Amino acid sequence: MSEGNALNPGFAVTTGPLPSSRKIHVPGTLFPDIRVAMREVDLTPSAGEPPVRVYDASGPYTDPAVTVDIHAGLPALRRGWIEARGDVEAYDGRPIRPEDDGGKAGGPANLAEFPLSSRRRPLRAKAGLAVTQMAYARRGIVTPEMEYIAVRENLGRDALRAAGQVRDGESFGAGIPDHVTGEFVRDEVARGRAIIPANINHPEAEPMIIGRNFLVKINANIGNSAVSSSIEEEVEKMVWAIRWGSDTVMDLSTGRNIHTTREWIIRNSPVPIGTVPIYQALEKVGKPEELTWDIFRDTLIEQCEQGVDYFTIHAGVRLAYVPLTLKRTTGIVSRGGAILAKWCLAHHKENFLYTHFEDICEILRAYDVGFSLGDGLRPGSLADANDAAQFAELETLGELTKIAWKHECQVMIEGPGHVPMHKIQENMTKQLKICHEAPFYTLGPLTTDIAPGYDHITSAIGAAMIGWFGTAMLCYVTPKEHLGLPDREDVRQGVVAYKIAAHAADIAKGHPAARLRDDALSRARFEFRWRDQFNLSLDPETAIQFHDQTLPAEGAKIAHFCSMCGPKFCSMSLTQDVKAAAEAGMADMSEKFKEKGAEIYLKAEAAD
Amino acid sequence: MSEGNALNPGFAVTTGPLPSSRKIHVPGTLFPDIRVAMREVDLTPSAGEPPVRVYDASGPYTDPAVTVDIHAGLPALRRGWIEARGDVEAYDGRPIRPEDDGGKAGGPANLAEFPLSSRRRPLRAKAGLAVTQMAYARRGIVTPEMEYIAVRENLGRDALRAAGQVRDGESFGAGIPDHVTGEFVRDEVARGRAIIPANINHPEAEPMIIGRNFLVKINANIGNSAVSSSIEEEVEKMVWAIRWGSDTVMDLSTGRNIHTTREWIIRNSPVPIGTVPIYQALEKVGKPEELTWDIFRDTLIEQCEQGVDYFTIHAGVRLAYVPLTLKRTTGIVSRGGAILAKWCLAHHKENFLYTHFEDICEILRAYDVGFSLGDGLRPGSLADANDAAQFAELETLGELTKIAWKHECQVMIEGPGHVPMHKIQENMTKQLKICHEAPFYTLGPLTTDIAPGYDHITSAIGAAMIGWFGTAMLCYVTPKEHLGLPDREDVRQGVVAYKIAAHAADIAKGHPAARLRDDALSRARFEFRWRDQFNLSLDPETAIQFHDQTLPAEGAKIAHFCSMCGPKFCSMSLTQDVKAAAEAGMADMSEKFKEKGAEIYLKAEAAD
Repeated sequence: MSEGNALNPGFAVTTGPLPSSRKIHVPGTLFPDIRVAMREVDLTPSAGEPPVRVYDASGPYTDPAVTVDIHAGLPALRRGWIEARGDVEAYDGRPIRPEDDGGKAGGPANLAEFPLSSRRRPLRAKAGLAVTQMAYARRGIVTPEMEYIAVRENLGRDALRAAGQVRDGESFGAGIPDHVTGEFVRDEVARGRAIIPANINHPEAEPMIIGRNFLVKINANIGNSAVSSSIEEEVEKMVWAIRWGSDTVMDLSTGRNIHTTREWIIRNSPVPIGTVPIYQALEKVGKPEELTWDIFRDTLIEQCEQGVDYFTIHAGVRLAYVPLTLKRTTGIVSRGGAILAKWCLAHHKENFLYTHFEDICEILRAYDVGFSLGDGLRPGSLADANDAAQFAELETLGELTKIAWKHECQVMIEGPGHVPMHKIQENMTKQLKICHEAPFYTLGPLTTDIAPGYDHITSAIGAAMIGWFGTAMLCYVTPKEHLGLPDREDVRQGVVAYKIAAHAADIAKGHPAARLRDDALSRARFEFRWRDQFNLSLDPETAIQFHDQTLPAEGAKIAHFCSMCGPKFCSMSLTQDVKAAAEAGMADMSEKFKEKGAEIYLKAEAAD
Repeated sequence: MSEGNALNPGFAVTTGPLPSSRKIHVPGTLFPDIRVAMREVDLTPSAGEPPVRVYDASGPYTDPAVTVDIHAGLPALRRGWIEARGDVEAYDGRPIRPEDDGGKAGGPANLAEFPLSSRRRPLRAKAGLAVTQMAYARRGIVTPEMEYIAVRENLGRDALRAAGQVRDGESFGAGIPDHVTGEFVRDEVARGRAIIPANINHPEAEPMIIGRNFLVKINANIGNSAVSSSIEEEVEKMVWAIRWGSDTVMDLSTGRNIHTTREWIIRNSPVPIGTVPIYQALEKVGKPEELTWDIFRDTLIEQCEQGVDYFTIHAGVRLAYVPLTLKRTTGIVSRGGAILAKWCLAHHKENFLYTHFEDICEILRAYDVGFSLGDGLRPGSLADANDAAQFAELETLGELTKIAWKHECQVMIEGPGHVPMHKIQENMTKQLKICHEAPFYTLGPLTTDIAPGYDHITSAIGAAMIGWFGTAMLCYVTPKEHLGLPDREDVRQGVVAYKIAAHAADIAKGHPAARLRDDALSRARFEFRWRDQFNLSLDPETAIQFHDQTLPAEGAKIAHFCSMCGPKFCSMSLTQDVKAAAEAGMADMSEKFKEKGAEIYLKAEAAD
């Protein structure tokens, strides 16, 4: 098995723009060569409205001006910025071994190897230097990455000011600015309140930020397991996930071809890639109890050199906490958490990720890989929510955050899981306090356990709420959660459900401009601009397909009704009549108003 | 068209039990002949756990002991109770006319007519009497309906007490009892805090209750439109909606065959049926401005005689409020609201439903049809949420509630619509205050406008939250909302999304016993009882189908992994090992504990 299978020669991914959309590039101000990718949705000319500009995580795949060659990978957007800082060096990286893909030592190379892999020379910090965005931020430097993010996050805020829209919302103490500057980004990163996952070996990525005072982000988990999927499918899942709006992607592959699958994904990913390195370390040794610090360290370096942008590290699963999980309904439901708990008990020793935490910091700061401190003891059922094991681990994560920050490493904190609605806010409040405002990154949470097959919904409810309360990134859950490995369509369902949750949270937090797209779509809906309504939606393909199931004719795209109510019962159509009648009537009655109409209209005005 | 089409002779509906489920009947205490239908899910014998009893809205269709004949309708469960009260009389009802189905006066009868319709003699209250559950409640009478409901709502609470489970939750002022008695039900109905929709001409229905201190209910809207669907499809949608748990069904048919479609639905429905009578009245006259009180009154009586259990009446759409909607982004989005606004403006007169409200009360009290006071001015976009038009109408609904109660009519209040998360709670708080705690019945609300095709999700988020805050019934939204008429599969998606929202709300409110099913499912999940996990879920068919997409073999139903993580990475499997190791280890180390293990374990205990 070590050589893997050669890839299908016809291997390709989904490309092409979304309907009526153009890729645009907005220049930076501090750095004139920066071109921030966004999407503009053109509306029908009759609308008399400008195009609607939207945040765009999809990368060059939706840009018809770019010829995508997945065998070559994406252009190295950030390479010049990284080299200009003069603090990195290229070196002969760790050789790729058959064991990295689950093969036997000394066996043949993987036939599916990414074509340029063996020629790549990784970068690392020059001896003793920290090359993290936090290190720069603390020295007062606004990097091109920060400037890119400022332009990206600022989307629509100028239009908002021009339109004179009043901000509303309840931010639960977040400090969301009217206008995002590079300096604001720098300050948030310096304080540790936001992170920019940006490994110097993943120059293909477009910079993005995760923090409570920025737009809420979402992550999609992909990756094969020992019983399902292939390299090609996983690369397509990545491209597909970002097409629908995923801001980062975690490659959680286990089984065969871990190294090679990841290489294909990173080289072709315009979004940050996260992993859980203990999975690959376990594949190398076979059993949890055989894990060692050396194997883990070697795996970290392997992945740092490849360009992984953030690592889930379950350093908070301490030996002492394992007994706290024994009476739980669902024990330990994190894979990493269970692996480490097993190791701790087998050796009756403290978790080696905890004891070697400063060593890990030293490695991560040399590549700028962010920490995603794993919640290995998160609850896997409502019965276990907010229990002693969960909050004991959170205390340790707070302690580790301080240590990572001492090394100028970027940190976010992973959170639950399965939590009933009335216990969600406590998670956020405790996390902010215990982890010193480091960004929170939660899985769901799922608000009930009884709907396998629909857990994208049980969890979108919790995700929207915790996003509103302050969670910076929401890890999606697909309809296949608890049942099997998600396929491409499941990925879309999960991503769209989480874009909904994140956007609902942005609006409720009072992000300026967050509602511009809602308002544009609602105007289109009210004016029967069906095409505009579809094109402004999160998933235009599905919207148009649902509409056309009953009214496929082209004429129905401008009709003043749909099959839900039919022509006579369309409230929007009736309202247009009401509006016309009322306006005509009010003009007509302008004279009589004070005598005859006064009584009724005055009451209405009083209620205004 | 007036004769309609004869029905397909092969017309049948979905029957049969859900997997591993039995229909049981729990006897009442006050009334020994009462047999309350519930479902019991049997678990695998190895579990050593009792069956899990769940609330069951599906009626006889899931009972293999019953032979369903939709051409005969369901047995008249309540007939004896109604007659025993001695306050009703049978009379020759209003003749069915071709116009009732959209045909021409004097035309032929509808070929699709329900077989027994022409032989039915409707019931009404004897002159001057009120036959509403509220009237009985105020006189201190616990009706068999109330007793049925007490047993039904009490589900699991005794098991809970036996298990010693502690209640938690945040009820926002609701008064949820540990044990539900018939007397409690009576008291809530007498106060107007809950309603029992139970037309005396719909004796087929199993009694259920809608109120803040009871389990949160959901409603599914079905019904054809002028451009889509058939009678057969709509009857199947009703049976399908209740199979997945819908507590009531609204028949919103427009176009042809309104009367006959409704007749088939009511005669075969074990759940209360709601309608919006203005739709049929409009079909009879053709244009909103031609509506008259006489046509509307005739339609009300037609539907009271058929057995509709609650009517949406848009009496709050007052002429004076129409101007408040003119500057809205989406105007008036309620069909009924738009029809009445158009009528008001055309005549420049007050809404005839408002001026004739006491006449309507007189009719409804003679059949015990509940009011669902419609929110004709609800917001149809985030931009319009919580505006002057919406809250002006709510004030009127509060005023009308008092009038209806004076007539001993049961009342609930409809609510929005499209509302961002931070504005949801205000809706609930205002409704409780303004409408004197009459039950709230909301559509969603949708928390963003940008996801047509996924509005079951945008709205399940808002529905779960407003359900938690106190809404008594949640009207579902399907994925087709804004795009077309939902088909059977859309109905399932909408119902399951709303069962999730309602159940999440029940848990967060602190309903005793609400979590029993979650806990049973989570135990099954942790113990790899896959069949039990599927069978305890809201939609076992989908759960098993998703699982089997990658692991169809029978052996996988007892395997200690699924395709999501594969065998080596299954956290639950690893945790079983951890648990065994820890338990063995702790026994083994019981002696050494105080010397060697104390430091670590003590810390863990301190955190507990």
